[in-house]
Amino acid sequence: MSRMEIFGIEGIGEISAGTNLADVIAEAAASDQGTVLRDGDVLVVTQKIVSKAENRLVAIDPNDPLSHKPLVEQESVRILRRRGDLIISETTHGFVCANAGIDLSNVERGWAALLPVDSDRSARRIRDGLRHRSGVEVAVVISDTFGRAWRRGVTDVAIGCAGVAGVVDLRGTADALGREMQVTEVAVVDEIAAAAELVMGKSTGIPVAVVRGIDPTWLRDGSVRSEVIRKPSEDLFR
Amino acid sequence: MSRMEIFGIEGIGEISAGTNLADVIAEAAASDQGTVLRDGDVLVVTQKIVSKAENRLVAIDPNDPLSHKPLVEQESVRILRRRGDLIISETTHGFVCANAGIDLSNVERGWAALLPVDSDRSARRIRDGLRHRSGVEVAVVISDTFGRAWRRGVTDVAIGCAGVAGVVDLRGTADALGREMQVTEVAVVDEIAAAAELVMGKSTGIPVAVVRGIDPTWLRDGSVRSEVIRKPSEDLFR
Repeated sequence: MSRMEIFGIEGIGEISAGTNLADVIAEAAASDQGTVLRDGDVLVVTQKIVSKAENRLVAIDPNDPLSHKPLVEQESVRILRRRGDLIISETTHGFVCANAGIDLSNVERGWAALLPVDSDRSARRIRDGLRHRSGVEVAVVISDTFGRAWRRGVTDVAIGCAGVAGVVDLRGTADALGREMQVTEVAVVDEIAAAAELVMGKSTGIPVAVVRGIDPTWLRDGSVRSEVIRKPSEDLFR
Repeated sequence: MSRMEIFGIEGIGEISAGTNLADVIAEAAASDQGTVLRDGDVLVVTQKIVSKAENRLVAIDPNDPLSHKPLVEQESVRILRRRGDLIISETTHGFVCANAGIDLSNVERGWAALLPVDSDRSARRIRDGLRHRSGVEVAVVISDTFGRAWRRGVTDVAIGCAGVAGVVDLRGTADALGREMQVTEVAVVDEIAAAAELVMGKSTGIPVAVVRGIDPTWLRDGSVRSEVIRKPSEDLFR
């Protein structure tokens, strides 16, 4: 737990609809200077290639800068704020983000990428595929880039996970002075996504990173949907 | 940029008012299995030891669980939400967080730790101290644990920094398909704080971590206050 390594997997090419991501990742890892995936590694996979592999691309008018806006409405269950062209909404998945997570960068002109339908399932599929193909027991986090309230700048967060906790509950763990701590539920899966982003960057074409050295007690069944998404009824800012 | 290492510095003992943190960190690093700080390392230092060193502890009635509440009001310029004992407010520094960032865990019973007065300055002081003492050019991030809107669980974010960018502006950088990207301002300093938390944990007594391998172009003058804090007038959720 006191040492971690994070590195990108080089050589993952363009992904198209139907690509088996587990196969592509295993092959790229094997040929990237002999990087070998190990049990306990956490693979962070960017939403963009998951959306492409799952055929979540939708054609839009390339000459109309607002042509993806009807998609934003379609992918949203509730609009929270509008400012100019920006829409902050709650998506059908329960995420609160700009433009329903629909992205036009790193996709071909004339196409928009919607979020995966169920990113926890997407993560499980990659995890199961790697176990089946390589016999390796990795966790998988699907990451995307979201803005936040109150703070400038975007950060990467988790939109799906498998084999790793979404939130680790430190309620009742003794603190360093031996007393019982106040409730501390840490969204480790979001911290993992953020950490991976530091090596993936935004435009370097490295859509998968390995986070090695995670506390093994965090490697359990996990879900962003059921652990990380805050219900509207529990949310003070919706 | 494609490989990073993160590790905690062991052996940092209890910190008290007036402790020179740069000295303590340099000594602990030197005796922790010969860990040697290098130019370009980013040191992430938790708020708690900074507040202790800067004598930001305030006595409270240990038998009254609400005795820190007047401090929350004093440290706040605006209350955003209340629910039961929980207060979400904007602090005098401009942070939006629970209980004005005042913490009772990992401090002696009967004491509360306020946030540093100016965490960017605290970071500069540690950075300058290490340069002066050891001739090493490190960046410093002061981290704290905040909740978020819309998502469950807390994550570590930066409350101050020196020698590293708060936000990296990728506006206009070409994406992997060679087209100009949409505006992407990444709060790398928050991602660094989150990454460090993965090795520090909440109760392991490791209050300083090293993040090694950050993109060297991010190592410039930086400030959480001027880069990361969103002005109320620009904020859709205040």
